[in-house]
Amino acid sequence: MSHTYRLIFDCPDQVGIVTRVGDLITQNGGWISQANHHSEADNNWFFSRIEVKADSLPFELETLQEKFAPLANELNMNLRIVDSAAPKRVVLMVSKGTHCLADLLDRWKSKELFFDIACVISNHNDMRGLCEFYGLKYHHVVIDKDNKQPGFDEVEHIVDDCNAETIVLARYMQIIPPALCLKYKYQVINIHHSFLPSFIGARPYHQAHRRGVKLIGATCHYVTEQLDEGPIIEQDVVRVSHSAAVEDLVRLGKDVEKTVLARGLRAHLEDRVLVHGNSTVVFN
Amino acid sequence: MSHTYRLIFDCPDQVGIVTRVGDLITQNGGWISQANHHSEADNNWFFSRIEVKADSLPFELETLQEKFAPLANELNMNLRIVDSAAPKRVVLMVSKGTHCLADLLDRWKSKELFFDIACVISNHNDMRGLCEFYGLKYHHVVIDKDNKQPGFDEVEHIVDDCNAETIVLARYMQIIPPALCLKYKYQVINIHHSFLPSFIGARPYHQAHRRGVKLIGATCHYVTEQLDEGPIIEQDVVRVSHSAAVEDLVRLGKDVEKTVLARGLRAHLEDRVLVHGNSTVVFN
Amino acid sequence: MSHTYRLIFDCPDQVGIVTRVGDLITQNGGWISQANHHSEADNNWFFSRIEVKADSLPFELETLQEKFAPLANELNMNLRIVDSAAPKRVVLMVSKGTHCLADLLDRWKSKELFFDIACVISNHNDMRGLCEFYGLKYHHVVIDKDNKQPGFDEVEHIVDDCNAETIVLARYMQIIPPALCLKYKYQVINIHHSFLPSFIGARPYHQAHRRGVKLIGATCHYVTEQLDEGPIIEQDVVRVSHSAAVEDLVRLGKDVEKTVLARGLRAHLEDRVLVHGNSTVVFN
Amino acid sequence: MSHTYRLIFDCPDQVGIVTRVGDLITQNGGWISQANHHSEADNNWFFSRIEVKADSLPFELETLQEKFAPLANELNMNLRIVDSAAPKRVVLMVSKGTHCLADLLDRWKSKELFFDIACVISNHNDMRGLCEFYGLKYHHVVIDKDNKQPGFDEVEHIVDDCNAETIVLARYMQIIPPALCLKYKYQVINIHHSFLPSFIGARPYHQAHRRGVKLIGATCHYVTEQLDEGPIIEQDVVRVSHSAAVEDLVRLGKDVEKTVLARGLRAHLEDRVLVHGNSTVVFN
Repeated sequence: MSHTYRLIFDCPDQVGIVTRVGDLITQNGGWISQANHHSEADNNWFFSRIEVKADSLPFELETLQEKFAPLANELNMNLRIVDSAAPKRVVLMVSKGTHCLADLLDRWKSKELFFDIACVISNHNDMRGLCEFYGLKYHHVVIDKDNKQPGFDEVEHIVDDCNAETIVLARYMQIIPPALCLKYKYQVINIHHSFLPSFIGARPYHQAHRRGVKLIGATCHYVTEQLDEGPIIEQDVVRVSHSAAVEDLVRLGKDVEKTVLARGLRAHLEDRVLVHGNSTVVFN
Repeated sequence: MSHTYRLIFDCPDQVGIVTRVGDLITQNGGWISQANHHSEADNNWFFSRIEVKADSLPFELETLQEKFAPLANELNMNLRIVDSAAPKRVVLMVSKGTHCLADLLDRWKSKELFFDIACVISNHNDMRGLCEFYGLKYHHVVIDKDNKQPGFDEVEHIVDDCNAETIVLARYMQIIPPALCLKYKYQVINIHHSFLPSFIGARPYHQAHRRGVKLIGATCHYVTEQLDEGPIIEQDVVRVSHSAAVEDLVRLGKDVEKTVLARGLRAHLEDRVLVHGNSTVVFN
Repeated sequence: MSHTYRLIFDCPDQVGIVTRVGDLITQNGGWISQANHHSEADNNWFFSRIEVKADSLPFELETLQEKFAPLANELNMNLRIVDSAAPKRVVLMVSKGTHCLADLLDRWKSKELFFDIACVISNHNDMRGLCEFYGLKYHHVVIDKDNKQPGFDEVEHIVDDCNAETIVLARYMQIIPPALCLKYKYQVINIHHSFLPSFIGARPYHQAHRRGVKLIGATCHYVTEQLDEGPIIEQDVVRVSHSAAVEDLVRLGKDVEKTVLARGLRAHLEDRVLVHGNSTVVFN
Repeated sequence: MSHTYRLIFDCPDQVGIVTRVGDLITQNGGWISQANHHSEADNNWFFSRIEVKADSLPFELETLQEKFAPLANELNMNLRIVDSAAPKRVVLMVSKGTHCLADLLDRWKSKELFFDIACVISNHNDMRGLCEFYGLKYHHVVIDKDNKQPGFDEVEHIVDDCNAETIVLARYMQIIPPALCLKYKYQVINIHHSFLPSFIGARPYHQAHRRGVKLIGATCHYVTEQLDEGPIIEQDVVRVSHSAAVEDLVRLGKDVEKTVLARGLRAHLEDRVLVHGNSTVVFN
């Protein structure tokens, strides 16, 4: 992976955006190695992600940010400029299920996914051994159903304390308080099962089995105050047949969950996801 | 396709079903060329589909049916015995959209799907040309929103009159009256779009677009009085990205719809679908 | 589909390409509604597809082409500028199999795919009825195995004569002479089955069945002198199981073939495919 | 998972097989909970997998085996009768790549896959830590390119010594000697990349990238003396685009590899795979 600066922005659409951004980059000798643009005709909004080779510029990230500030201001951009060589700090939150965690740890350890694990937080102690084997700090924060707030205060304190940018709910199984979601807006990533049609209420896999669905899916999304209604980053499904019992559906669901979470997290870590309204643009 | 008699049945599960059925076939010299069994542990129910080579039996379908009647009775079977060489008579119902109809007609004409088209019924005249090119009878039955019953009475009359077994709603876009669904129970096949999550209400593709879904799907199911809630025969999805406008979602949805409908219809025509409660066993 | 001019080009990569192209568009008031860029690091090559709203420019296509000529020359671009409102003229070539043809005709008729059908050429008369129903000109050109050249001379004459840009081999089943491929370089689109692993020689479906493959695929590609080795536009697969006989594999293969051909043709018609060496960039 | 005895057999096809097998089971009070049959018309061969509830039989596995011996002999069956409660003993062989190993260990630890790990063998020491964290025995057996035989003699000795039934090459990257393959016939499971078309020779991912393939796949198969030509158990693919560099293809390939290996291994562990000639019947 070559060293680049990533410019990610969205703004009201108008003539000349690409050109003005390009001019600014080129004037400073910047070499664009990748660029994606998308304009949403419905609401006249423009989205862009541009990678500039870091060594083509005669200055550092901060200077690039300064040079872009006036244009960003003029065009009403939501702009981030990010150094591809700086790993994001991520807090992993887990419960008892291992499939997503084991998968992410292997991808992290083998450098397939590029990020720092600030720590792991869990309401159970089950995953401590695996996490400590990988040399990670593990916080056991009990979330008691009659008294959730103190628990989540501690979670928030830990996250703040370790300067994490991103929180990954790797089958955490607890509802994150709205205030925490807002504080880390579009930085909290969740994975949950999905079906066609959707099943509301308890034991969705049992409902899906009774209904005889032929596909089992998973959705990776940002967590907002509306629980599982946040912007979708990635989805996939797997085929199932009548011969699958409920526990087979659950097992097959796990495979999709971990794959979809890993893909969604990758898109997030590489700054490929732009949120607008309740939907996303994902530049793959 | 070799000539077989297909035994399709479901019944309460117990020891010895397969054996007793097999005995009866074998005693008469029957050669089982294919057999699928499934037992649903939750509700202790047994499902089976067996193909016997027609020329291995010294008698005709009717005799086979007679010989099985006592056992079917004893084991409380829902049993059908079907001649694979007898094409099912199908009524196609369409509106203005051509994609499912054109696809089915080509599969029928090229003998990829084996069935007779009794006639085509539509609330519009748009598809008359294509149907008549293929030599099919075309009924234009106006369904008026203030006065649906007379229209559907005519539909019912036509269907009854042509001895159809199966009705395929190939994007018919009208709600079939519950009485007609009941009369042709598990014989009326529909195709409709599906999303993860589901979108209730009008303009689902617009909702899906606003929500930024990454998959677009379709479900083929039997129509029951509960509209789109009937037993699912087949489902599939296709990937979409942010670059797809609403009309692209619709277009991609069409591709899934026609493929899923064709697969579901094939399973139905080959007597591979057994309905139990609100779900299906599909022996592929 | 809004009216745009599409600029499609590839050239040696260097600093400032996007900016210089963007400048030229913006100076003339052009509004970029979509843009995709890709640079291939291995061979330092740059690819781009830009859509400019036609009504944002004060002149016609020819003037735009003139204005771009010097820059294209300077940057060694392979550049095309295309009017999205001008349908490409396509010759369809078919044999006896109907699945791809029926599918394409429905997509064309329903305006899902935007192109003109100059004519249909076939070495058999089987498809004449369907084509004439759709109001198309149908040429029956016999290709005799001992005397192919005269047949293909006639084909070439017909194609030249109707000013076709694109030739679609919709299961034509004959090898196009290298000279004709060269004359219509990257304009002749073919669809053929694909397997993992590949099977060389006769009756590939029989080989695939004997080998017990679990996937059946199709590849849509440009035809070059190296037969089925040309640049790949699109591929897909479908799952199969041991219960599928050879004829089931063939049938499932047809479904993939027609879907993949339609997707590949769409990419071609919308000028989304750029060929470089023996591979393609497809901007979806 | 309920406790069953699994009867898996294949034999020349003839009238009455299912019935005679069923009779024998039923006479002894056996309750068939699942049954799959398949007959291959081409070569007149019959395949079957039957699960009988263990507690419906008044005797143990050995007695069941004895009672079936005469029928198996008479019908020329290749018959195995297996206790579902007895985990298979598996040797995992790995090199430096972690993705398949980490995935299998998590599936094993979480009891998603039911088997015993006899030990792990590797030609490198890299995976020792993870394996020992999971409490597994790890053998570092150097395979030297000039002197492979002593290394593989040691491997064979270890495998024999620990009474393993199954060997899983989880990206082992070394060619297993034919003699060892023969000794553990249809018990050595491998996973390798697959492409459409296939690429012969070195660096297949580089070849695939140069050719611009749109799908990357993996094949799980039994290892035979013909290297990667053994009977296929499972396959799958993932879509790729031109924006994927060689290292992205490799990364996406890993995801398919580990999923396909896990699915293939599950089928093997549950005795769902029957090999005939060079192909498999997989009863899912």
